[in-house]
Amino acid sequence: MAESMGNLRRTHMCGTLRIENENEEVILMGWVQKRRNLGGLIFTDLRDTSGIVQIVFDKDVSEDAFNKADSIRSEYVIAVRGKVQKRQSVNEELPTGEIEVFAEELKILDEAETPPIYIKDDDDVSEAMRLKYRYLDLRKPRMQENLKIRHKTAKVVRDFLDSNNFVEIETPMLSKPTPEGARDYLVPSRVNPGKFYALPQSPQIMKQLLMVSGMDRYYQIVKCFRDEDLRANRQPEFTQIDIEMSFVDIEDVISINEKLIYNIFKEVKGIEIELPIQRMTYKEAMERFGSDKPDLRFGFELRNISDIVKDSEFKVFSGTIENGGEVRGINVDGYADDISKKDIKKLEKFVKTYGAKGLAWIKVTEEGITSPIAKFLKEEELDAIIERMEGKPGDLLLIVADKPSVVFDSLGALRIEVAKRLDVINKDEFKLVWITEFPLFEYDEEEGRYVAKHHPFTHPMDEDIDLLETEPEKVRAKAYDIVINGDEIGGGSIRINNSELQEKMFKALGFTMEEAWDKFGFLLEAFKYGTPPHGGIAYGFDRLIMLLTDSDNIRDVIAFPKTQSATCLLTDAPTNVFEKQLEELHIQLESEDKE
Amino acid sequence: MAESMGNLRRTHMCGTLRIENENEEVILMGWVQKRRNLGGLIFTDLRDTSGIVQIVFDKDVSEDAFNKADSIRSEYVIAVRGKVQKRQSVNEELPTGEIEVFAEELKILDEAETPPIYIKDDDDVSEAMRLKYRYLDLRKPRMQENLKIRHKTAKVVRDFLDSNNFVEIETPMLSKPTPEGARDYLVPSRVNPGKFYALPQSPQIMKQLLMVSGMDRYYQIVKCFRDEDLRANRQPEFTQIDIEMSFVDIEDVISINEKLIYNIFKEVKGIEIELPIQRMTYKEAMERFGSDKPDLRFGFELRNISDIVKDSEFKVFSGTIENGGEVRGINVDGYADDISKKDIKKLEKFVKTYGAKGLAWIKVTEEGITSPIAKFLKEEELDAIIERMEGKPGDLLLIVADKPSVVFDSLGALRIEVAKRLDVINKDEFKLVWITEFPLFEYDEEEGRYVAKHHPFTHPMDEDIDLLETEPEKVRAKAYDIVINGDEIGGGSIRINNSELQEKMFKALGFTMEEAWDKFGFLLEAFKYGTPPHGGIAYGFDRLIMLLTDSDNIRDVIAFPKTQSATCLLTDAPTNVFEKQLEELHIQLESEDKE
Repeated sequence: MAESMGNLRRTHMCGTLRIENENEEVILMGWVQKRRNLGGLIFTDLRDTSGIVQIVFDKDVSEDAFNKADSIRSEYVIAVRGKVQKRQSVNEELPTGEIEVFAEELKILDEAETPPIYIKDDDDVSEAMRLKYRYLDLRKPRMQENLKIRHKTAKVVRDFLDSNNFVEIETPMLSKPTPEGARDYLVPSRVNPGKFYALPQSPQIMKQLLMVSGMDRYYQIVKCFRDEDLRANRQPEFTQIDIEMSFVDIEDVISINEKLIYNIFKEVKGIEIELPIQRMTYKEAMERFGSDKPDLRFGFELRNISDIVKDSEFKVFSGTIENGGEVRGINVDGYADDISKKDIKKLEKFVKTYGAKGLAWIKVTEEGITSPIAKFLKEEELDAIIERMEGKPGDLLLIVADKPSVVFDSLGALRIEVAKRLDVINKDEFKLVWITEFPLFEYDEEEGRYVAKHHPFTHPMDEDIDLLETEPEKVRAKAYDIVINGDEIGGGSIRINNSELQEKMFKALGFTMEEAWDKFGFLLEAFKYGTPPHGGIAYGFDRLIMLLTDSDNIRDVIAFPKTQSATCLLTDAPTNVFEKQLEELHIQLESEDKE
Repeated sequence: MAESMGNLRRTHMCGTLRIENENEEVILMGWVQKRRNLGGLIFTDLRDTSGIVQIVFDKDVSEDAFNKADSIRSEYVIAVRGKVQKRQSVNEELPTGEIEVFAEELKILDEAETPPIYIKDDDDVSEAMRLKYRYLDLRKPRMQENLKIRHKTAKVVRDFLDSNNFVEIETPMLSKPTPEGARDYLVPSRVNPGKFYALPQSPQIMKQLLMVSGMDRYYQIVKCFRDEDLRANRQPEFTQIDIEMSFVDIEDVISINEKLIYNIFKEVKGIEIELPIQRMTYKEAMERFGSDKPDLRFGFELRNISDIVKDSEFKVFSGTIENGGEVRGINVDGYADDISKKDIKKLEKFVKTYGAKGLAWIKVTEEGITSPIAKFLKEEELDAIIERMEGKPGDLLLIVADKPSVVFDSLGALRIEVAKRLDVINKDEFKLVWITEFPLFEYDEEEGRYVAKHHPFTHPMDEDIDLLETEPEKVRAKAYDIVINGDEIGGGSIRINNSELQEKMFKALGFTMEEAWDKFGFLLEAFKYGTPPHGGIAYGFDRLIMLLTDSDNIRDVIAFPKTQSATCLLTDAPTNVFEKQLEELHIQLESEDKE
């Protein structure tokens, strides 16, 4: 029979009791982690969000409490009044392990059926079960800790931005469908038949409007939505730290964001990162790491050997270059003996998933080299390759020849794959880098035109503006990403605040001004009335928390996440609704004959 | 021609300069509030979010700046480098009025067309224009201030709750349609054909699940959604401060929330409110003020005269009582001379909108009384009424006879209406009161059954539990509202954490357990595994900000609000979407022949 708390009021949290509390009378409340009868006593581990403490029920202290205690089971919710005593056999594994509480009064606040999953971090039940019984899964210390770190990080961000005169401003959730970009989640309007709101993919346009409105410094920690097919570690709704500032150029945005990042690491992880954070141009990142989000915790950097082999008789190399391709490789230096020919076969299979046609390799040993391609190359070519790639005995060189995008993608992925297999990545290390000078455009094969890499309001670098009309592919953007351990945690840009430049930009994108107005009319209208230079950044908050909690799974940092098919196993959302509801919204389900 | 900032970097905000800055070189950036040429000089009021400062362009200081300045107009965005000088004729109205800045360099960062609305607080343009050009409307100092107060209030709330071990946890926006309550905004699922998410009306169930999950103390400042026909000061999306705590009873929730409210008033308004905040039962509030959200800034309290007139020959009174009605009135004490018979006619019309059949009145003068009903009442009845209502010369008694709900509604509204007309409400005063002991149920005439006044998980008062099965209408709830100046700013309750009690509750609501499981299955399932006593509160954040900014219009405290037809005049949301988008969502517009 469950009881009410009556006059009992919690005096302490379970996990906070220490030897200093000896002889104090305390009132604790929480869940029964386990119960065992031993030597005429009943022992219970009592758990609340702060931790665990041992409760002892002793007939000699309270017969009533002892008798009641005999009925309690795992996950019962109880209240205990008792005295803190020094423990005879200290439990070194518990922060409260030096003490225990002798119960003088026990109230059973709620009973519990046997839970379908164990409440412990190393429970290895399926994720589907964890999500269905999320309220039990969240009882695990690790999950509680993750949500607290998430809370704390948000708090640190807000404290920092607030003290730097940023104003948090809420932008609408019921917003306008976007003309470009990812797929929107749509919300049918009841009052405006046939019309739809969209849930925001980001507050990008609204935050720019706030700069037009003179709000000067804006931020928001805000939910965003993309209705895309979910890859691992994506969620249909995700959280962004969104920031925008007026009267700034790149340096101003980077400088204040470095301080923000410094504060996050200091307050949340106790780590003082070095400022300024290293910077690398997009070009350098691609050339050295085959990626615009390089993981700098290990080497295996890319080297270009195209010039060495461009006239080689080995047509796999020289032919590729002739067709506009490149030949680059990485030196897995010092690990040649750890990678067998069989491993190399697997790595070749791996790079093929990135479109590479094959993987050439050269092992450098004290006795010379081993390589299936050695016979096709002149000795001076081989020597030059090894010199360029700084090959020394014990090294393994892995080489890809293909069109540039495939070379970068496959080698960029390969160096990470190799590092993971060799387990050379220090998980406790954080390597931060700003990637700058992104290309303003990328060519969209499907649309047959240049599209904005970031978005069409991104400001070109001043020195490249003249190239907009002549060589748009060469124009670099005032854009920057912050990359930590190979993850893009945030990115942003300086925006165009000048209508002439904006017109040139639209022209380069192949829009007539009419089309541009069609798509972005109200923003262009706003820009007519005095727009300050402005720019900003957005951080993926879920990813940041994954990094700070060392979680591999995005669902471990979200209280109630969705599966990869965008369902909630706990509530069963999405669900069917009543015909009447659809009628009110002026929609109907696709008729069956259409399917 | 717009220029870039070049090397100029803002050194000060316009509104912060004082006589102490005299002779400093400053760089300012902002919008041109106005420009005028006078005596061979050009004067400009430069505005940023902090305020306004006067810039002087003098040919003798910089001919280049002077010449450029001649072209600038209202709302141009400029950067000025110059020296702070003492002003000859001080402008008392501006905080910066003792100084002005003599420009040595001017850059025009963006030009501006003549804005369609004036950038000043007392611009009297239509609200439609203000919403269409919201980015200009937000430039007004008053709107900037409102958004800053909103930000600051959120910050104070978070600081307080964080320091009291509350954890902010984000709950899903794509949630499950609710079985009861207001109309949901629905979001069709692409991946799960024919199914829908709902945008949350509140995180009520999720926050209770967080208590089941042992998170102990939760809060969230969060967007909620209700697709209802919009009355004034309602928005389809609104913001809630949502709070829930474990191992608490009413006193615990009220006590910490009083400290929260104290902090808000202290930090945001500089007002120290008196703690503890006054409490009043629902019953007392209805009897004295005819409302469960009484405005305590003025009197005119209700008095019950039913017992005096129950046997009266005046059938309007006695007949009403015979039929289960009541006769109550308010004494507009001291204002009889300010309210003409014509005014009373208007007030009668007013109470009729609340369903009252009429309004009886008695004026008390030195010479006796004036009243159209005097002739129907015995002298001792009249005397008793006047005594009960504490009538004295100069007072006006206004009386309604009707069924109780009409009497309360009409007199509750009447006392506010009279107070407004007489202008007796002190706008600078804040009167806070907790309303407690709400009825657990209210009778739903339409459904012909009792429904939960708050929600079906609200805990009955312990001493009333026995009445659940016998006299449900008498059961009071562990529910509480915080009312400030007649507005309900927040409300909450202790929840049921015991399945037996929950079953009784469902029974009283007329649900079989099967129906209850159908509606609330996953919450009832969760309650099986050990649920702590818990309770919480939710504040209407927009209303709170209206109160703190003294705004009458909810749209003045939201950056990008919607109209009463739920449209955004700025972005034009909601809009039409492409057929292809609907196809992907497996829905179609209602076919025309159905309309």
